Amino acid sequence: MSEVRELDVVVIGAGPAGEVCAGRLAQNGLEVALVEQDLVGGECSFYACMPSKGLLRPAQALAEARRVPGAAQAAAGELDVRAALERRDEIIHDRDDSAQLPWLEDRGIELVRGHGALAGAREVRVGEALLRARRAVVLAPGTRAALPPIPGLAEAGPWTNREATTAEAIPGSLLVLGGGVVGVEMAQAYASLGARVTLIEALGRLIAAEEDFAAEEVREGLEGLGVEVVLGAKASAVERADSPERRGTVTLELQDGRSFTADEILVAVGRRALTDSLGVEALGLEPGKPIAVDDTMRVPGHEWLYVVGDANGRVLLTHMGKYQARLAADHILGREVSLRADGRLSPRVIFTEPQVAAVGYTLAGAREAGLNVRALDRPVGANAGGSFVGHGAPGSVRLVVDVDRGVPVGATFTGVEVAESLHAATVAIIGEVPLERLAHAVPCFPTRSEVWLGLLESDEEQRRRPEVSGSRVE
Amino acid sequence: MSEVRELDVVVIGAGPAGEVCAGRLAQNGLEVALVEQDLVGGECSFYACMPSKGLLRPAQALAEARRVPGAAQAAAGELDVRAALERRDEIIHDRDDSAQLPWLEDRGIELVRGHGALAGAREVRVGEALLRARRAVVLAPGTRAALPPIPGLAEAGPWTNREATTAEAIPGSLLVLGGGVVGVEMAQAYASLGARVTLIEALGRLIAAEEDFAAEEVREGLEGLGVEVVLGAKASAVERADSPERRGTVTLELQDGRSFTADEILVAVGRRALTDSLGVEALGLEPGKPIAVDDTMRVPGHEWLYVVGDANGRVLLTHMGKYQARLAADHILGREVSLRADGRLSPRVIFTEPQVAAVGYTLAGAREAGLNVRALDRPVGANAGGSFVGHGAPGSVRLVVDVDRGVPVGATFTGVEVAESLHAATVAIIGEVPLERLAHAVPCFPTRSEVWLGLLESDEEQRRRPEVSGSRVE
Repeated sequence: MSEVRELDVVVIGAGPAGEVCAGRLAQNGLEVALVEQDLVGGECSFYACMPSKGLLRPAQALAEARRVPGAAQAAAGELDVRAALERRDEIIHDRDDSAQLPWLEDRGIELVRGHGALAGAREVRVGEALLRARRAVVLAPGTRAALPPIPGLAEAGPWTNREATTAEAIPGSLLVLGGGVVGVEMAQAYASLGARVTLIEALGRLIAAEEDFAAEEVREGLEGLGVEVVLGAKASAVERADSPERRGTVTLELQDGRSFTADEILVAVGRRALTDSLGVEALGLEPGKPIAVDDTMRVPGHEWLYVVGDANGRVLLTHMGKYQARLAADHILGREVSLRADGRLSPRVIFTEPQVAAVGYTLAGAREAGLNVRALDRPVGANAGGSFVGHGAPGSVRLVVDVDRGVPVGATFTGVEVAESLHAATVAIIGEVPLERLAHAVPCFPTRSEVWLGLLESDEEQRRRPEVSGSRVE
Repeated sequence: MSEVRELDVVVIGAGPAGEVCAGRLAQNGLEVALVEQDLVGGECSFYACMPSKGLLRPAQALAEARRVPGAAQAAAGELDVRAALERRDEIIHDRDDSAQLPWLEDRGIELVRGHGALAGAREVRVGEALLRARRAVVLAPGTRAALPPIPGLAEAGPWTNREATTAEAIPGSLLVLGGGVVGVEMAQAYASLGARVTLIEALGRLIAAEEDFAAEEVREGLEGLGVEVVLGAKASAVERADSPERRGTVTLELQDGRSFTADEILVAVGRRALTDSLGVEALGLEPGKPIAVDDTMRVPGHEWLYVVGDANGRVLLTHMGKYQARLAADHILGREVSLRADGRLSPRVIFTEPQVAAVGYTLAGAREAGLNVRALDRPVGANAGGSFVGHGAPGSVRLVVDVDRGVPVGATFTGVEVAESLHAATVAIIGEVPLERLAHAVPCFPTRSEVWLGLLESDEEQRRRPEVSGSRVE
């Protein structure tokens, strides 16, 4: 006999998207159950964004101190790997989610531990319990690392993001398969913590969704740290010298005959939606695939079913999952919603050194989309602000401008600590602030934000005198 | 017999405002002379913004490394004061302005060394030469430190910003008279470089133009560094124990009978416009006072005369002087101009620790101006981003919202390295982006910019349910 409970909304998956959705609904007076089979806080908090930044930050903070004479002399010691790993453990609360629970309690959200699956329209089964939703069911199951079908790979017991972000020690050497965001961040982190790292990418460049110059600068940054970056390399086989348990060395063979051996191999070649055991096949949806949703995050044909976060396949970024969660909650609450940021145009940051912070179109992306655009390019720190922060380190800014509308539609910043600089571009793009108005948004002296002056001046010159290609005045 | 030269525009003063104005005019095809009696680059480059940030940065970069476990252990050495001062000297090019000259040459600007003064309508005399401007004369003479009429102060040979930013060694102890921007920055810098610092301010709080909480946090920051902060203290007399040349100790007496003694005293109680010897009295203007201008930076009644930068008294900030310079140049070029950022509403950053970055109204300022506003308040780093940057350090964000128009009209950020976070607020305010639209400008996880989520959620809650005062969800 199963216990049957009725509530307003059932949310499956307590990662950031599920939590934010449940929180917003509950704060607006709805009765909400949040179902989680693993850790409340999700992949992001324990195995992805948070621990990865924890592993990356020590070397970057140290590098910045060493760029500043006076501080550099005080920062000549060795990075303490043990302390860095302990801080990482603190950031992930030693993989204990109890610190997350008061947030749910404060909002009156009922946490249901266990595996949730659809049991019919508006119904979710969790073990013995049947949760019946008066209004909606929200799926926020997330993704896990995809394993490509390379012979021997699965048998070699490879690392995914989970092992890479929670490792108890730094291996002597590491192969990283994949030069996307996870691959470049983990290559950077492990190299900075002392591993010999080889990064293998099938395409001819890293971080394929970003501007060419960003990919190039990240490659140079990694190589400067001693990472061997192998591009255009297709893996053909993987073999571990001993059993996965004994952790013998791993050898990766390429189709071109080259091979690389290391203590561990990290697979970072994409994600797989965790939609396999949610009972979605009864709705005619394909398990194990992202579930398509409309711009309210609702599954077409199932007005009671929403999917937010990675599992809808729109954009695999925590902050965008949270944004989708707010939209879905608002829609469930009967409010009007409009999706204004989505997919590859979403704001995004890669925390390598240089960091890559981007929003909206790349130049190539805008052209493919048929927009009439021009690029405004400047070095990121060639101004007074660059004398103090990130001094001497490389970095660039590109603003992509819609010439017809006179508004920015894309921006990419690379360099030391540019993550917080992105939001100004995001506000300008989402706010559709014309460049002529942006010229009155004065950046402070001496900050690196003054790069906007040069960008806008280039724009002005290109508009007034198309033959002039820009100047260096800032 | 004086040499007479005719050009389009004569600019007096080659600080940032004068340089930018001359540069913009020259790049648009005008023949421009730039007159400078001291260093090209001005007070800002050699005696103010640049060297002060040079003195502040080492301790701040080091403090940040020490907040990051793993890096902290590597950064346990002592700040190298000599190296910091040498870097400061590098930043100010050992007070040699030759590095500034190629910028002028590239633009075909004629640099005229010497003291320039008005000799009639559209005429400037520099020594033997008479420069006749076809279009306009632009005054950009700047300011110098004001000396208050405290008995004995002038005789004691006090430091102004000039000596404080260029000192060859750190005195054992320093009195700082004035708790405005220069006072708090120099108190912070000298304390961080090893001086015993006492800061004396006549008002009951520091940085009087900023939000109360910012003043309070800066005071706590200074006191945490060992600075003695004395508020509500009126100076009555100053005496140096020996001659100014011999640099005996200086004693400052307060009206309440207390007295403080130190090796040096820095006077930072305001600025005086350098308009005394420009020949402005012939135009009916008062020498030594700021020269009022209209919103095109033109002096009313003298259509050929513009004043940009500190000397027009509107706002004493390099970036605003440069903004005014762009407007004035555009007006001279016959373009339509509109002033959209001005005075106390201008963006501004104080580079203490915590930094204070603000734009537009403070809450009190907005209310005084008669706006119907509410404040949205959040801690700056109480989100995921705060786990990595400025971890554990204090800081706050206040957004001041015009309730009637639904747009932000003021923002203040305090905390570690918030200078670059300001521009997003500046774009939102100048772009008049409604809060409802800002909710779609998604800040990236995990950056401290996610503080915007909490601000906007508070706003939403206050709009929907006026009795709820906000939550901590981000």
